[in-house]
Amino acid sequence: MSASGFSFNVSARDNEARAGAITTPHGQVTTPAFMPVGTKAAVKAMAPDELKAMGYSMVLANTYHLALRPGAELIQELGGVQSFMGFDGAVLTDSGGYQAMSLAAINSIDESGIRFRSHIDGSPLFLTPESAVEIQEKVGSDIMMALDECTPFPVEHDRAMASLDLTARWASRSLAAREQNSLALFGIVQGSVYPDLRRISARQITSIDFDGFATGGLSVGEPKEQMLEMAALSASILPSDKPRYLMGVGTPEDLLDAIAMGYDMFDCVLPTRNARNGSAFTSRGRLSIKVSRFARDTRPLDPDCGCRPCQTLTRAYIRHLYMSGEILAARALTEHNLYFYRRLMGDVQAAIASRTYADFAKKTRDLMRSEEAGLAETDDAG
Amino acid sequence: MSASGFSFNVSARDNEARAGAITTPHGQVTTPAFMPVGTKAAVKAMAPDELKAMGYSMVLANTYHLALRPGAELIQELGGVQSFMGFDGAVLTDSGGYQAMSLAAINSIDESGIRFRSHIDGSPLFLTPESAVEIQEKVGSDIMMALDECTPFPVEHDRAMASLDLTARWASRSLAAREQNSLALFGIVQGSVYPDLRRISARQITSIDFDGFATGGLSVGEPKEQMLEMAALSASILPSDKPRYLMGVGTPEDLLDAIAMGYDMFDCVLPTRNARNGSAFTSRGRLSIKVSRFARDTRPLDPDCGCRPCQTLTRAYIRHLYMSGEILAARALTEHNLYFYRRLMGDVQAAIASRTYADFAKKTRDLMRSEEAGLAETDDAG
Repeated sequence: MSASGFSFNVSARDNEARAGAITTPHGQVTTPAFMPVGTKAAVKAMAPDELKAMGYSMVLANTYHLALRPGAELIQELGGVQSFMGFDGAVLTDSGGYQAMSLAAINSIDESGIRFRSHIDGSPLFLTPESAVEIQEKVGSDIMMALDECTPFPVEHDRAMASLDLTARWASRSLAAREQNSLALFGIVQGSVYPDLRRISARQITSIDFDGFATGGLSVGEPKEQMLEMAALSASILPSDKPRYLMGVGTPEDLLDAIAMGYDMFDCVLPTRNARNGSAFTSRGRLSIKVSRFARDTRPLDPDCGCRPCQTLTRAYIRHLYMSGEILAARALTEHNLYFYRRLMGDVQAAIASRTYADFAKKTRDLMRSEEAGLAETDDAG
Repeated sequence: MSASGFSFNVSARDNEARAGAITTPHGQVTTPAFMPVGTKAAVKAMAPDELKAMGYSMVLANTYHLALRPGAELIQELGGVQSFMGFDGAVLTDSGGYQAMSLAAINSIDESGIRFRSHIDGSPLFLTPESAVEIQEKVGSDIMMALDECTPFPVEHDRAMASLDLTARWASRSLAAREQNSLALFGIVQGSVYPDLRRISARQITSIDFDGFATGGLSVGEPKEQMLEMAALSASILPSDKPRYLMGVGTPEDLLDAIAMGYDMFDCVLPTRNARNGSAFTSRGRLSIKVSRFARDTRPLDPDCGCRPCQTLTRAYIRHLYMSGEILAARALTEHNLYFYRRLMGDVQAAIASRTYADFAKKTRDLMRSEEAGLAETDDAG
């Protein structure tokens, strides 16, 4: 049974790309949508009202982290995570399956679920498909994610295959455990970099009546071409009448590719984490503010950008702030990068509506290659 | 000769307290004025336009720190520190004398000046009265401070006495070194906690035609009563037609005391540093957001406050942010504390204008003792 508070509507198509809107108990989210990552119910360096003012109407938080601190009961008591954060919008929560991989040293997995030791104080946290849904219902997530096992890269075919079956059983248990039917629940397709496994997993997961489907287990260290190949394969099998969510991806270029495959939703730490490492996404490509040639550069980060930092701060000053370890460097770069991603999604939506997406994507990509090439750091996240 | 771009006008008096305005090349500053500390040309966690919007029209930066990074020449080339920061207001720079004390391990002092080894990379920096003025002129400070020797606490009488004479000679050399007559230059009175030395120093320094006078060397570890006694003694000797600046002080209560003595200007790291340590100044007293009773408290930091954090974030959420190490905790508490100090100065100005200052100060102090007493941390700065 689909969630009563949730709907997805496609308003425009351009080849496989589509634009539309997701409706949640906490408002509407136009798609394609990028969700800033707010792991601990906070998007690092940003205030919730700034995110909203920038046009973000959905952010991502994390079940594992919130369960440990401040605890699901506290968030429930305070009216749900949106109210707790003071965010006038929707929240999607990842299930904790990703942490089973990223925090592998402190957890163990069996049929029943994932046993964690808190990375904060060592206290136990047992995430089962059922408890992950229960926590997310307490947290009041507009979109909950089913608990999955996210395999690392590389992983052997046999191991990935066994994991798929576990993830599929957990997916069924997750949907059966949902009690609050106003909240959406998405299933996650795995399969590592094996096409046969991606097909099997997509068929397994889409056979369950989730409100939307995610492609998971990518951007975990595999080569970019394999990521894109698996994302495309997975998208081609996911039903077209439900949102398609590519988890943990990616660069602006990755988003342009994935939108052409028919994906509707994205999350990634790149704009926020790279900001804290001194890297800005701009219309002309990436820019590392550490580079000494910016020391006397009085231009904004991106002369074509309308964000507040680009209206008020120069590259020279932001470089000084970064070199001096000032919090304002992280703030300015984060705000700029998130503004850039938000504007990109807005432009993408308009291009799809006018059926000019391929042309838009090519021009955007060409411009991003034009000027600042070679200045940026290597990606440090996925 | 007084600075051409600078003037000070007293518009109201209430006993020794006075309200007025300082006019600088970068605008007017109403007094009594609190200046947020932006050591490295940035008030930690704040954006310059936020400070201005909050009503701050002057901030403090530091000669030693700016000389090392990004360098006075760079700031000069980019139009001065106000333009470099994107701050639409005035900047006062401390001379570096305080760093001779706070960074004593990496400097040595003789008649000529202070020889530093950079705390960043060990490179040499030689601050003389002349070079300190030259650096501040390049930086374009609206108010420059003469290089002084700030003695630590405790210090022997003989040692403090010798230091006074050095500071007086440096003061004369500082004024003689000024080349840009549009920029104001203030002298600094020292004398540790010795009344005779405070009198001598005040007479020495006020015999020089500075644009304003500061009481320095307090809030460096001495008991509060001695700080207030020395501040009052010094104020009573400083000329009434020039601004009186009490350096490095203090708590809201200290400011109320010092304003009654006739001080016009203040700077202190307390509102910003304490914020980053989880402490909020409120109309009902101080509040440590770490305290567990705030975990479920949905009130703002200060129900009587109009700042943005108090309009958008709860104590429960800010506590979660603080416990989680989120940058937004530092931002919210800093913005709140600076708003509190700014509002206090506005209220003080109005109370002096209506000649109700003593009553205002008593009521404000009583209210600050009323509710949250015992929740706050000990001061961690001065």
